[in-house]
Amino acid sequence: MERDLYTADHEAYRETVREFLAREVIPYHQRWETDGWIDRGVFAEAAKHGIYGLQIPEEYGGAGEPDYRFRMVAAEEIAKAHVISFALTIALQDDLVLHYLLDLTSEEQKQRWLPGFASGELIGALAMTEPGAGSDLRGIRTSAHRDGDDWILNGQKTFISSGIMADVVIVAAKTDPDAGSKGYTLFVVENGMPGFTRGRKLEKIGLPAQDTAELFFDDVRVPAANVLGEEGLGLRYLMSHLPRERLGVSVKAIANCKAIFDETRRYCFERQAFGQPIGEFQHVRFELAELATEIDIAQAYVDKSVLAFNKGTLSAVDAAKGKWYVSELQKRVMDACLQLHGGYGYMREYPVGRAFVDTRIQTIYAGTTAIMKEIIGRDLAP
Amino acid sequence: MERDLYTADHEAYRETVREFLAREVIPYHQRWETDGWIDRGVFAEAAKHGIYGLQIPEEYGGAGEPDYRFRMVAAEEIAKAHVISFALTIALQDDLVLHYLLDLTSEEQKQRWLPGFASGELIGALAMTEPGAGSDLRGIRTSAHRDGDDWILNGQKTFISSGIMADVVIVAAKTDPDAGSKGYTLFVVENGMPGFTRGRKLEKIGLPAQDTAELFFDDVRVPAANVLGEEGLGLRYLMSHLPRERLGVSVKAIANCKAIFDETRRYCFERQAFGQPIGEFQHVRFELAELATEIDIAQAYVDKSVLAFNKGTLSAVDAAKGKWYVSELQKRVMDACLQLHGGYGYMREYPVGRAFVDTRIQTIYAGTTAIMKEIIGRDLAP
Amino acid sequence: MERDLYTADHEAYRETVREFLAREVIPYHQRWETDGWIDRGVFAEAAKHGIYGLQIPEEYGGAGEPDYRFRMVAAEEIAKAHVISFALTIALQDDLVLHYLLDLTSEEQKQRWLPGFASGELIGALAMTEPGAGSDLRGIRTSAHRDGDDWILNGQKTFISSGIMADVVIVAAKTDPDAGSKGYTLFVVENGMPGFTRGRKLEKIGLPAQDTAELFFDDVRVPAANVLGEEGLGLRYLMSHLPRERLGVSVKAIANCKAIFDETRRYCFERQAFGQPIGEFQHVRFELAELATEIDIAQAYVDKSVLAFNKGTLSAVDAAKGKWYVSELQKRVMDACLQLHGGYGYMREYPVGRAFVDTRIQTIYAGTTAIMKEIIGRDLAP
Amino acid sequence: MERDLYTADHEAYRETVREFLAREVIPYHQRWETDGWIDRGVFAEAAKHGIYGLQIPEEYGGAGEPDYRFRMVAAEEIAKAHVISFALTIALQDDLVLHYLLDLTSEEQKQRWLPGFASGELIGALAMTEPGAGSDLRGIRTSAHRDGDDWILNGQKTFISSGIMADVVIVAAKTDPDAGSKGYTLFVVENGMPGFTRGRKLEKIGLPAQDTAELFFDDVRVPAANVLGEEGLGLRYLMSHLPRERLGVSVKAIANCKAIFDETRRYCFERQAFGQPIGEFQHVRFELAELATEIDIAQAYVDKSVLAFNKGTLSAVDAAKGKWYVSELQKRVMDACLQLHGGYGYMREYPVGRAFVDTRIQTIYAGTTAIMKEIIGRDLAP
Repeated sequence: MERDLYTADHEAYRETVREFLAREVIPYHQRWETDGWIDRGVFAEAAKHGIYGLQIPEEYGGAGEPDYRFRMVAAEEIAKAHVISFALTIALQDDLVLHYLLDLTSEEQKQRWLPGFASGELIGALAMTEPGAGSDLRGIRTSAHRDGDDWILNGQKTFISSGIMADVVIVAAKTDPDAGSKGYTLFVVENGMPGFTRGRKLEKIGLPAQDTAELFFDDVRVPAANVLGEEGLGLRYLMSHLPRERLGVSVKAIANCKAIFDETRRYCFERQAFGQPIGEFQHVRFELAELATEIDIAQAYVDKSVLAFNKGTLSAVDAAKGKWYVSELQKRVMDACLQLHGGYGYMREYPVGRAFVDTRIQTIYAGTTAIMKEIIGRDLAP
Repeated sequence: MERDLYTADHEAYRETVREFLAREVIPYHQRWETDGWIDRGVFAEAAKHGIYGLQIPEEYGGAGEPDYRFRMVAAEEIAKAHVISFALTIALQDDLVLHYLLDLTSEEQKQRWLPGFASGELIGALAMTEPGAGSDLRGIRTSAHRDGDDWILNGQKTFISSGIMADVVIVAAKTDPDAGSKGYTLFVVENGMPGFTRGRKLEKIGLPAQDTAELFFDDVRVPAANVLGEEGLGLRYLMSHLPRERLGVSVKAIANCKAIFDETRRYCFERQAFGQPIGEFQHVRFELAELATEIDIAQAYVDKSVLAFNKGTLSAVDAAKGKWYVSELQKRVMDACLQLHGGYGYMREYPVGRAFVDTRIQTIYAGTTAIMKEIIGRDLAP
Repeated sequence: MERDLYTADHEAYRETVREFLAREVIPYHQRWETDGWIDRGVFAEAAKHGIYGLQIPEEYGGAGEPDYRFRMVAAEEIAKAHVISFALTIALQDDLVLHYLLDLTSEEQKQRWLPGFASGELIGALAMTEPGAGSDLRGIRTSAHRDGDDWILNGQKTFISSGIMADVVIVAAKTDPDAGSKGYTLFVVENGMPGFTRGRKLEKIGLPAQDTAELFFDDVRVPAANVLGEEGLGLRYLMSHLPRERLGVSVKAIANCKAIFDETRRYCFERQAFGQPIGEFQHVRFELAELATEIDIAQAYVDKSVLAFNKGTLSAVDAAKGKWYVSELQKRVMDACLQLHGGYGYMREYPVGRAFVDTRIQTIYAGTTAIMKEIIGRDLAP
Repeated sequence: MERDLYTADHEAYRETVREFLAREVIPYHQRWETDGWIDRGVFAEAAKHGIYGLQIPEEYGGAGEPDYRFRMVAAEEIAKAHVISFALTIALQDDLVLHYLLDLTSEEQKQRWLPGFASGELIGALAMTEPGAGSDLRGIRTSAHRDGDDWILNGQKTFISSGIMADVVIVAAKTDPDAGSKGYTLFVVENGMPGFTRGRKLEKIGLPAQDTAELFFDDVRVPAANVLGEEGLGLRYLMSHLPRERLGVSVKAIANCKAIFDETRRYCFERQAFGQPIGEFQHVRFELAELATEIDIAQAYVDKSVLAFNKGTLSAVDAAKGKWYVSELQKRVMDACLQLHGGYGYMREYPVGRAFVDTRIQTIYAGTTAIMKEIIGRDLAP
């Protein structure tokens, strides 16, 4: 169905994103995948063109534009470019790191960090997950204790996106073992702090250019000035920032579904078999019709979620619904589109094969499908 | 997600519908099911309260209110009342019969028929389907030929909703065997015309109070004044009126999903097993969460469709997407909710069991799921 | 795939069953459905021809034939006759009642009851379920206490198949509230015992000729001679007899799938639309191919289960796997076959519509799908 | 359910395979994946231990053991070792290449080639697929024409497994453009024949150690002595050898499902979250129960298919049913097992992540799911 949420401003921005990708990303992405890294330089370019960080206030060098529809436009264009490692790396800044740094920082902290993000010189990461604590945040064992004005941080984190390239890392740690859910605090650990080391880049089945790492904290001395928000409220901050992260997953998921579907639809009417385009076979026609329908229906929900987010009314439950549903739909769409490509679908040279592997993480990170159903289901109890 | 399409007027109308149902329908529906018929008197009451026929212009006795959101409100309240035979019988007038009579009639015809509909005294039916022509409209064999100012109509129709109680029946017939798709015309056959007879009420697996019948036309003399629209354009009229019919199916489907889901959710937290409400079991919680999500997502699409219909921009393809998707979702919801009721789900005394059977027709009539996919799929070809 | 479990004896028996059905059941089943009852006389005829009760030893008037393959042959032929109310009523005797009466009775009890079953004069029922105890057998509140040589039984049962026509009812009751799972005993309550009354036939959405009822026990005096097996072992007996009941569900399910599929396949190549048999459309061809495959694969498992049951090696877990999987497959098959019939699928005159409703209970009784997954899942824990 | 198709001989062979894998494959497979190649030396070792090529008659250096159950044992043990690139490379010889060379060769040809296969020194490939001819074999454009006693072969093949390492390649070519389905012939092209060149190893999303290539034939002179079977019967040979290839896919698929399921089940009871093994959560228990059931049911069919193949009664349709169903099941199993691993499922160090990607080709090669449904569906037409 026709979408009606964009204005001319959004469409103009779409053009900007498209040009940026054509010039700065598409020509290099394959090399980044082979190298296992995205060139750091692209972030400065991206920040300069507002591909991310738009929401940073003007006084810190940003555009002060909080409208999430611009993020959605960017996600759509990045999806069409089939550069998923880049997509995730950028989204991490916008939907996670900056989101924390904008909401929880003091003026002094804003001054310290935001201009670096606005210029693309600083890259951030968020370190929640631990080997024994994924969905179960209370299982966090990384801990910090006061030592004068500083905190001494010890522990280990895993699956940290941009963990190796990050200049600043927001770390969740237990600061009061007796305070239950009020015993966790967020710290900003900066590059070069003694005792902060990084493991090797983790070997994943997909997202080859994306940086995922283990981080180690061995008696890292973190000054109190690097505490994010209030001491003891860490868990609450993590919970309250999840809806935006999850909306980000839905937005990327639906954009990727649409992009791969469009590519597949084109393929089906070009590829010939048994004397006709395969798109003329009824089973292919039905498959395409099903995918088109499911994507269109999910799009209506995601669009509505984006507008609700803009208004500040997107609930945690509504974000959770979108997160699990659209990421599971994405799995079905990737799988079906790969299958429609036949043997070509298994080749790296076609976007669908890469997308099939690269996007398989979507139902897992930012809260697994099972965790989303817990959240939604509990909300249904009287 | 919060819906935002209703105004205070719609909510006031909701109250009217609710009161009407409580007074005029709910106390009688079970008896109508046993009898196999809805009392004719209820239609006059319903029309009087604007439960249907709102869109009839004021000059013919109606309210002149074309806003489809009122139809949706009515569908929602009727769904909550679990009176599905009534729901379909009413919807038939609004989404099919009146839709034709408003769009295709001359002033003289309007004067003849609309006041009767506005007062609930006339009931109409639409006779498209034949034993050998369901989805395949060109298979229609009922035919009519000119005889002076009249037409002589011969043939047979089947699966005609309200076929027995209808006072006026819109009949599609072939009028020019050589004109291909331009050889079909719509006629209004009226009660009492010689040669027009009705078979017995067809025995269905569900919808016991709903009237479905075979109709027979044996040299029925239909005056030219009863031709609907232009001669030869019958097929085009049928095609152009399908989107509203299909939107009507989507609207009823999502309303019914929501009503049965709410009832099931309540049941799951009342029913105890193994020492706790069954809703506390994780598998039930997940099942409820999945249903809540799927319903919410489809609702976003249907709401958007209703607004598009109001603006005149709902395309045939978009209506087809909603029709198959939401009616298939309805099957899953009915099935899952019945299962959650355990043995009670199989008893007629619980709404879910009746709804499971009564709504099974939704993926079939108004164009089967397969036909919807054909329409959508063809539209995807370059 | 070709099945290889039957011998010439089984095929000869198949002929017997087929003739019996043609003569004694098929001509009357529709009337039984209208009446809401199966004529009692047919049971005597059925027993005489070995349609059920084959396993009763010769000394009590039976054929002494324990080979479950004969049951499977009967289930297949009954499925082809589309007489599902009859199918369930017969299966209840073989897979439940007789199974208990053969395994748990003393010689004196055998003499009292088995000849009546062998001649089809006695009909039995099994009363486990209560309003507050379905899957959760420990929720049973019906209780009995000793009074001299007798037991005084009080309580209420629901959803009891053949509850109204049964002459003997095996009732599970709590006999020692302090003994935990060892506090339940089985009693045979006989027609005419004072205090034993029956509610009205429950109104179900399907299985119109099948008798399902509530039973009430108000100070019923049951002689010790009517205790089945040992006092206190009731729960163990119920558990140990479930695999056969569940195998019976799988066998009926796969037989019904095959029968309805064959009927649908025939329909698809007779029914014409758009100028060809609908079976020639690729989407119908694929749908039929999927159903044929799924049925064939499940059949391999059920056949293997039957042979394992004959050898005494069918585990509770293996029976549970078949029970949920094949009954859920049956739902998919019924639904798909109904859909392939279009509008005709919704008419009672086609077997598929009736089967759709009549078989919806299969995933619920004899242990719901959820209970089956609990059993299987627990067995997977280390 | 307990499987009953193996004898002590098969179990002894299982031990041999297991030891071979532990010694010759498992320690090296990761290196092979990094290298993109399996060490050629392992084939000689494998052949020597009967890991493949068992069916080669003794007079040519083999074991003369046609029992397919040994293949199944090997597939099961290879699956447990999680070495899927190796699995496919070995299966290619047994289920395709050798199958042709045993069935279609003259005595002279057998003498030339079989001893090399028996000793593992010769590796073969089968070249059917072309850029424009996948499922649609009649689209083959590679052609050969007579030139004296030789044939001159021209064309191009793609997606050829072991295409680069193969010493002998069976090539399907059109030899008579006017003979319709009788115009295709099979040729054995040998390493070093002038005009026979290979493209680079194709980059796939998975199976990193597996060799898949494009092959080019530019006026390759093939002696008549290298024609396989009779001229003109190529298409028939291809069709007749597909059932074994497809059985091979089913066998590998079910073995892999079982191996990954077992690994996942173990993981679920080791991994802790929210204070307990995740396998104790009901949704995980149900998921495992569903997978265990589906695998067990499919296993019954595959086991039956293997016995039928041994007897020579496995039909093309029955092989097609197994092929699509079990390979589609494999997709569901891989996906669900990956999800149960959470973030670890996306890491290459866990077998499930690699298996998810490596096995995605299973529904595509050897005939896509769609082609299987065509075969089965056509067989259902009257």
